[in-house]
Amino acid sequence: MSRSGTRGDPFRVKSGRGKAGGRVYSVDRWVLRTFLHAMGDPPIFAALWDGKDVVRAGAATGVGMVIHDRATLWRLVTNPLLNFGDDYSAGRIEVAGGMVAFMAAIYRVMGGGARRFQRTVYHRKHPDRNSLSGSRSNIHHHYDIGNDFYRLWLDREMLYTCAYFPHPGATLEDAQIAKMDLVCRKLRLKAGQTVVEAGCGWGALARYMAGHYGVTVRAYNISREQIVYARERAKVDGLSGLVDYVEDDYRTIRGRFDAFVSVGMLEHVGPAHYRELGRVIDRCLEEQGLGLIHSIGQNVPDPMSPWLLKRIFPGSYPPTLREMMDVFEPSGFSVLDVENLRLHYAKTLEHWLERFEENRERIEAMFDTAFVRAWRLYLSAAIANFTVGKLQLFQVVFARSDNNRIPWTRSHLADARGDA
Amino acid sequence: MSRSGTRGDPFRVKSGRGKAGGRVYSVDRWVLRTFLHAMGDPPIFAALWDGKDVVRAGAATGVGMVIHDRATLWRLVTNPLLNFGDDYSAGRIEVAGGMVAFMAAIYRVMGGGARRFQRTVYHRKHPDRNSLSGSRSNIHHHYDIGNDFYRLWLDREMLYTCAYFPHPGATLEDAQIAKMDLVCRKLRLKAGQTVVEAGCGWGALARYMAGHYGVTVRAYNISREQIVYARERAKVDGLSGLVDYVEDDYRTIRGRFDAFVSVGMLEHVGPAHYRELGRVIDRCLEEQGLGLIHSIGQNVPDPMSPWLLKRIFPGSYPPTLREMMDVFEPSGFSVLDVENLRLHYAKTLEHWLERFEENRERIEAMFDTAFVRAWRLYLSAAIANFTVGKLQLFQVVFARSDNNRIPWTRSHLADARGDA
Repeated sequence: MSRSGTRGDPFRVKSGRGKAGGRVYSVDRWVLRTFLHAMGDPPIFAALWDGKDVVRAGAATGVGMVIHDRATLWRLVTNPLLNFGDDYSAGRIEVAGGMVAFMAAIYRVMGGGARRFQRTVYHRKHPDRNSLSGSRSNIHHHYDIGNDFYRLWLDREMLYTCAYFPHPGATLEDAQIAKMDLVCRKLRLKAGQTVVEAGCGWGALARYMAGHYGVTVRAYNISREQIVYARERAKVDGLSGLVDYVEDDYRTIRGRFDAFVSVGMLEHVGPAHYRELGRVIDRCLEEQGLGLIHSIGQNVPDPMSPWLLKRIFPGSYPPTLREMMDVFEPSGFSVLDVENLRLHYAKTLEHWLERFEENRERIEAMFDTAFVRAWRLYLSAAIANFTVGKLQLFQVVFARSDNNRIPWTRSHLADARGDA
Repeated sequence: MSRSGTRGDPFRVKSGRGKAGGRVYSVDRWVLRTFLHAMGDPPIFAALWDGKDVVRAGAATGVGMVIHDRATLWRLVTNPLLNFGDDYSAGRIEVAGGMVAFMAAIYRVMGGGARRFQRTVYHRKHPDRNSLSGSRSNIHHHYDIGNDFYRLWLDREMLYTCAYFPHPGATLEDAQIAKMDLVCRKLRLKAGQTVVEAGCGWGALARYMAGHYGVTVRAYNISREQIVYARERAKVDGLSGLVDYVEDDYRTIRGRFDAFVSVGMLEHVGPAHYRELGRVIDRCLEEQGLGLIHSIGQNVPDPMSPWLLKRIFPGSYPPTLREMMDVFEPSGFSVLDVENLRLHYAKTLEHWLERFEENRERIEAMFDTAFVRAWRLYLSAAIANFTVGKLQLFQVVFARSDNNRIPWTRSHLADARGDA
């Protein structure tokens, strides 16, 4: 984890903007100190706009933030989890010592102090964020902002989900192939079988399953940009006969399949719809079929940060294992295997952030500075969350409870195509 | 699964006892038919005491029961889940076509029809069955009935929990060794580490960990007979210096350990005490420690059969994964790995039942016929439950959520000592 990387000198920023904020009063310092204490005293420094008033809540690690004016300070302390992101994006807050290290330092203490800030009214304002039309709008917000943008920092196959690194030094390209192969092996795919995929992204897994395992895939997605890309790639790869990309919601899946797979969609389904998803799977899985759901999760239920919900991932929620059981339990599915790939997602995100920063100028030209800063924050915060153990990555294999043709052991997982 | 094995001719039993039950009236037939229908029409026959009146609810499989008198019939229909076991044990009901096949046929339909019979008052009568004293009495009831008895049908090392068969044809002895080694590998034991075991049975796993992985083990159990046996075996094996068997409840565990392990105890803890167990683990696990809980479970919450609770396993309950999260979630543990070994338990139980039947006469001499019949029913019902998917076997590996020294992949599980 590249927690120690320092981006420039914080005091350069601070003194550069010193004048804009005007004079610092003792009440400003008191407000900042009280706020940091309420957050759980994360080991960061926090500096105000005069260049002198620095609050050091913990060890002098060089990790901290500079707040550029009083209005920003007040926005921060009144609704930190929403406004920090917006004010960082707008350049009214600067972070020193590396954004990942900064966020990790805060998340490490959040369990105690700051979780109370998390309960905003955002959730109550969106009673069914993931209805058919709500989902379409949510997904459009994030995934339809341009394939050219994602191409700059995702792997060659355009997988926007946690990779599987057979060893920590594997390349991102290899790790995404290894992930797809791991999923195929967990599903025990055999040539001639049929697979339905819920939430197929740019279609890489569907193409991999068809191309390497000889199965027929029906893959659903409500992101138009992704579906268009997926169909083109399948045509180029000569897989159009085996892979059918359907631009529709998972709730419309019909037919019966030997395998159900969903990688990175459950985060967008919403706990209120887990039972419905379970019924969809129950309807479409053959008696002897296997299913796999791969999703970001967490150990303790906690809503997403309101900033992330508003600016990056509307309608999303990472479930606990207990909450995920709402998919499986009401339909009587049997959980066969759960693997937690938390550190693999931190590693995946580190690759993405590195490529993102390498392409910063091009992305800034595509969008603007605020966009770059917002996405840097999002990717860094995600690395920090997976690193400190606030977020998990659960891969769950399941079957009908009376299916006795389930794998006897895990020996079928060992002969890895992608493994080192 | 040996579902088709037939034990003798049912009609021999029936006509042999024909006279005892007296005349069969049409109300008897109506009661029996209505009862079977309410059960969900399992594909079994059911015969009454006159040798003629046979109700065939499903296909003519040769699997069914003979009810020897009217009083038994009435007991059966008024409280089947308690009285079937008692009346079978007493010889007032005979089963044909094999007990496993008979129970499996019933369990397969129970989801629909008979689950309602399950909700007896037994649970409400025992508000805290698993208090310190309650647990001691419950465990004494089952595990202190004689080491000589268990020696007749368990493996050489006396493991009374689900084995791990690298392939279905492995011997029970090999499969129990493979299970212990699998547990050690999942915990990544290294020489010099310390392990605490909650519920150690006759102490085999503790001896294996110490003998093969060079760790120091403190193993808790409240069954006196088991502890006495465990200490003797450790002395004989020269492991007394590494293994300390403590005759006490898991709630009294003190100290800090590199690993926590519990195989087959959670079933006796009771859901009301899962949080407490979680706090015990939280108190005793080192920051970088790993834990493993191996327990019978189920997909949908359902109380144990009242007969099993009363006669065989007082105070026991197999949790769903959702319920198990009460151990992990409140203390913020991270679930790393779940493996479902359901079919391995059916296989283990088949070995046990076979050895049990081979030693039937010796066991009858130790106890009596009713005991043999009760235990045959218990072991057969368990095979049926695991075979039809009503019971599961979950092996859960966990760690503190901020422990980043967790296994990177599962590659450490593959180099199996016990594997084929």
